[in-house]
Amino acid sequence: MGTTRILVTNDDGIRAPGLKALEESMAPLGEVTVVAPDYERSATSQSITIHSPLRVQALDERHYAISGTPADAVILALHQLLDAKPALVISGINPGANLGENVIYSGTVAAALEATLHGVPAVAVSLASRRNLDFSAAAAFAAEIAAKVLDEGLPPGVMLNVNVPRGSPPDICGVRLTRQSQKITQNLIYEKHDPRGRPYYWQDETVDFDSVELNSDYAAILAHEISITPLQVDRTDYASLSKLSKWMTSLQSLAAK
Amino acid sequence: MGTTRILVTNDDGIRAPGLKALEESMAPLGEVTVVAPDYERSATSQSITIHSPLRVQALDERHYAISGTPADAVILALHQLLDAKPALVISGINPGANLGENVIYSGTVAAALEATLHGVPAVAVSLASRRNLDFSAAAAFAAEIAAKVLDEGLPPGVMLNVNVPRGSPPDICGVRLTRQSQKITQNLIYEKHDPRGRPYYWQDETVDFDSVELNSDYAAILAHEISITPLQVDRTDYASLSKLSKWMTSLQSLAAK
Repeated sequence: MGTTRILVTNDDGIRAPGLKALEESMAPLGEVTVVAPDYERSATSQSITIHSPLRVQALDERHYAISGTPADAVILALHQLLDAKPALVISGINPGANLGENVIYSGTVAAALEATLHGVPAVAVSLASRRNLDFSAAAAFAAEIAAKVLDEGLPPGVMLNVNVPRGSPPDICGVRLTRQSQKITQNLIYEKHDPRGRPYYWQDETVDFDSVELNSDYAAILAHEISITPLQVDRTDYASLSKLSKWMTSLQSLAAK
Repeated sequence: MGTTRILVTNDDGIRAPGLKALEESMAPLGEVTVVAPDYERSATSQSITIHSPLRVQALDERHYAISGTPADAVILALHQLLDAKPALVISGINPGANLGENVIYSGTVAAALEATLHGVPAVAVSLASRRNLDFSAAAAFAAEIAAKVLDEGLPPGVMLNVNVPRGSPPDICGVRLTRQSQKITQNLIYEKHDPRGRPYYWQDETVDFDSVELNSDYAAILAHEISITPLQVDRTDYASLSKLSKWMTSLQSLAAK
């Protein structure tokens, strides 16, 4: 058995308390390397930096700050910084939930998706609270799920999106396998004016809790349970392939025009 | 019958030639409004801007440049700028293919995914060439597929990712419904040094054409066919839900500790 290498990253930057908590919780499981953005890059989804170069700052041989996104951090770690492929990439702990369509915007989740693309089992961990930032229960559960993934692996192309409710057991009532909720948020746009009278816009969202679906990620968190959602990198909607095949005859004739 | 409203956007910015070509091709189908980033935002995936406000520059009543990402453009268009919900959002025409895992990084595709989240049928259109930037065949096909989507709709939560090979019929041999290719690219990292001797890194990729799968988006383009891939916003891997359910007993006991 060689060394078990674990890559820890996040979207909040190398100095984030959630990253530190996650790093500490991984230490008993293997040799941990941290490669993370130099400052907060939340809501950057799976952006990559291709129009400018990236800088790498080695803080020590196990901690690297990079001048890019979470996906950049994973790519640089896997293809430049690490000596060997890690057994696990774990991302977080994000202060704030990544549920429903926020899974799509999340840099925390994107880092894990990026690792999955490269064939490395990956987990994203978020604390479903923005006010109570005690990461201890989330970090403890991260260690448990990481050990499970290291033991049993994950299906190819699939990662785990873990959201932990605030508090500690017994306030955390269980663990639930969930699906990504449909969009149940409403978008809010706030118009404000600068000192010169010109408008600018902030975007925000509000969640419609009446629309929460059974067995969705939101439902687990509302029930004070840990939510684990398996997410895939393949976005093909296979069900539509047959539905759309009836369009093909007319479209084929177009292409032949 | 009311007005058919069509929102056109992209990730290359409001002055991109591919956007102009797409706007012109949509004009016969309805009332077109263009809301697009003020400059190129390619590879920004589905990033949204939440840490700074957004500016909107109205060039005229049908053209708006916004200081954000493609997803921001769609959100501002739907919730601030348009009088009524459009019947279609179409994004592009991107100079360069969006195939395989580049679908994930693409701002062009992300704009269409964002529209899909908001319940608006959406299509992303890319020209699978970076050198031959004649958008005419892609624009003509965009008009055909847009008319089809306006007539027949799309399944909820599903968008179409269209890639058009370079050239014109008969060089374009047909239309194929495809799946998103697995990652068949290899990542390249180039280390360079600045005038002060400090390293910096560019990332790039190379495609391993020997790995192209049957009926994938890459396969269609290599066969000089138009590729149409239905993509879904729900990233849940439902197949894993049952596989992972055997983990739940041990994890439940953990949460109860």
